[in-house]
Amino acid sequence: MATEVQKVMQDRRAALAERLRTESVDLAIIGPGANFSYFTGRRPISTERLLALLVTANGSCQLIAPELQAPLYNDIAGVQLATWRDGEQPADLLLEQITACKAQRIAVNDEFYSGFLLALQAGEDRQFVSGERTIDAARAVKQDHEISALARAAEAIDETWQQFCASCGPLAGQSEFALRTRLQQLMQRVGFSEISWIDVGAGANGASPLHHGSDYVIGADEPVVFDFAGCFDGYYGDICRVALTGTPPDEYQALYDLVLSAQQTACRAVRPGVSAQQIDAVARQQIADGGFGDYFTHRIGHGIGLAAHESPWIVAGNPQPLAAGMAFSLEPGVYIPGRWGVRIEDILVVTAQASR
Amino acid sequence: MATEVQKVMQDRRAALAERLRTESVDLAIIGPGANFSYFTGRRPISTERLLALLVTANGSCQLIAPELQAPLYNDIAGVQLATWRDGEQPADLLLEQITACKAQRIAVNDEFYSGFLLALQAGEDRQFVSGERTIDAARAVKQDHEISALARAAEAIDETWQQFCASCGPLAGQSEFALRTRLQQLMQRVGFSEISWIDVGAGANGASPLHHGSDYVIGADEPVVFDFAGCFDGYYGDICRVALTGTPPDEYQALYDLVLSAQQTACRAVRPGVSAQQIDAVARQQIADGGFGDYFTHRIGHGIGLAAHESPWIVAGNPQPLAAGMAFSLEPGVYIPGRWGVRIEDILVVTAQASR
Repeated sequence: MATEVQKVMQDRRAALAERLRTESVDLAIIGPGANFSYFTGRRPISTERLLALLVTANGSCQLIAPELQAPLYNDIAGVQLATWRDGEQPADLLLEQITACKAQRIAVNDEFYSGFLLALQAGEDRQFVSGERTIDAARAVKQDHEISALARAAEAIDETWQQFCASCGPLAGQSEFALRTRLQQLMQRVGFSEISWIDVGAGANGASPLHHGSDYVIGADEPVVFDFAGCFDGYYGDICRVALTGTPPDEYQALYDLVLSAQQTACRAVRPGVSAQQIDAVARQQIADGGFGDYFTHRIGHGIGLAAHESPWIVAGNPQPLAAGMAFSLEPGVYIPGRWGVRIEDILVVTAQASR
Repeated sequence: MATEVQKVMQDRRAALAERLRTESVDLAIIGPGANFSYFTGRRPISTERLLALLVTANGSCQLIAPELQAPLYNDIAGVQLATWRDGEQPADLLLEQITACKAQRIAVNDEFYSGFLLALQAGEDRQFVSGERTIDAARAVKQDHEISALARAAEAIDETWQQFCASCGPLAGQSEFALRTRLQQLMQRVGFSEISWIDVGAGANGASPLHHGSDYVIGADEPVVFDFAGCFDGYYGDICRVALTGTPPDEYQALYDLVLSAQQTACRAVRPGVSAQQIDAVARQQIADGGFGDYFTHRIGHGIGLAAHESPWIVAGNPQPLAAGMAFSLEPGVYIPGRWGVRIEDILVVTAQASR
């Protein structure tokens, strides 16, 4: 791994150790997931074999890995590698390390498997806490090189959508699955290394926010909701658009305009210091004023970076103040069961300037 | 969902309830993963939003789902749906249900996120245990329709490999990444809905059992290890082969023959009643006798079904007796650092007959 990247990782782990001290946590256990990538520079695979980065409050770092994965992790500067072999009990090895560093209060990343946590809890009495405030918190504010990477992923998503629109032909007469396959091919051609999801919902199927697609054949004047996301060179892009062949019914056009306007209102409200819940609230109020409050059935957005969904959560009940460098989606939606749905999603980055 | 499938799911949940009673467990909590698919017939997405099937020891079933996923789960016969909306605390809803059914001893599936488990543990004092013996155990012995599905997945993997060999041209001169992309295209063309992994390791890279590929260009007479797996119509296929352009070095051919012979020995040892660890041991002994015991750095195999890796684990220390209907891989491997690797993987099903 390049020296420059190694330095970024070491700085991140040092910052984590400092947060652990602030939060009176002795040790962070970071299993597979975006946090692991953030602190090691490696994309791990999440399997039944225990893999975890340990960072202590005094800054020492150790990686516990299955022996057969050792070649993937034996060159991370400043991280000592300890391996276990199939047939051994990896939780025992982890408990040894916990004992060696005398950790009593231990943060684990939220995606860590419960099976491993329960094995650790069966040992000596220690306090295990969610790593959300210590481990995940680090990723909410992006570094400049991360914002550049997110911009490239966003461009790749936009490029995919443009190519789709230019080449898909009339939607009417095609099945949701056929359109999904077309998007999949384009995402791969544009260079996405991983497809997180491709949801295609026509007509009443669009009223199910996570409708993955079916063999339903799209009719004329029938709106179709497209939501797709993927990993481009390590960072995620995510977008939602609606499209149709023909003329939008007046009622649908009005709903679309309401959702778009709510998204724009939310976007204008974004600035450092405003709370995440406030962004959700302004869009929700506008949709409620339009008469569709009961049909906006999800939060307005989610952070994005090394994961497609991550902190900050732009949701009612989250008082977290926005800060420059945060990146997240704004994706209000309205879903009328049995009729249709609208969702419009774009990614934005908070800058120091009040207006963007 | 078809009535017949609904019936299969109801029977599985009834059998789970019976196991819970046997193991003195009051409630099973089953989050996203293959277990969820096994008991609901739906492939869930694993996200930061809490989704869980609850099955009590007396057989009542409830599904806790994010409201926006409700349309995906509102038609499962015999399962009551309870939804929560973004901004609410889903763990509170889950705790309400736990309290309502007076559960004191609760099994959670091993893949359940620790973040959710910690939130549940923060409530009233209750005992949480790994669901391995109650929840996962159900999937180890396959039903006939599952074995048919596994056979179709295995045929699809074989078909992919045959098409690859017929069309890839000389390996020498191509990069690992190029071959990986070729395999990816073929898996999609053959009909895999999900690619679990494609590992391509040439020469010394083949000594890293999980080498994903690189821009390394393959030389003449250089062995390449290919391991790829994916989901075909709900069930997984998984294979490992080695190939090269030219003539295998004598030393490599001898290593290959040893690994193949160890695989065949293990295969012949498979019958109902033999322990999982015994299958691993006979192959390991043969490889040790050949002088390469230290280089066989992983278990010989893993179960396969609704997940690419699942119980039974064919590994030292697992005394579990094999039973008719179990399906698993046999994949001995030898890895010489800096030189090369050999791994040969096939899937088999245990039948009632002693010899197969």
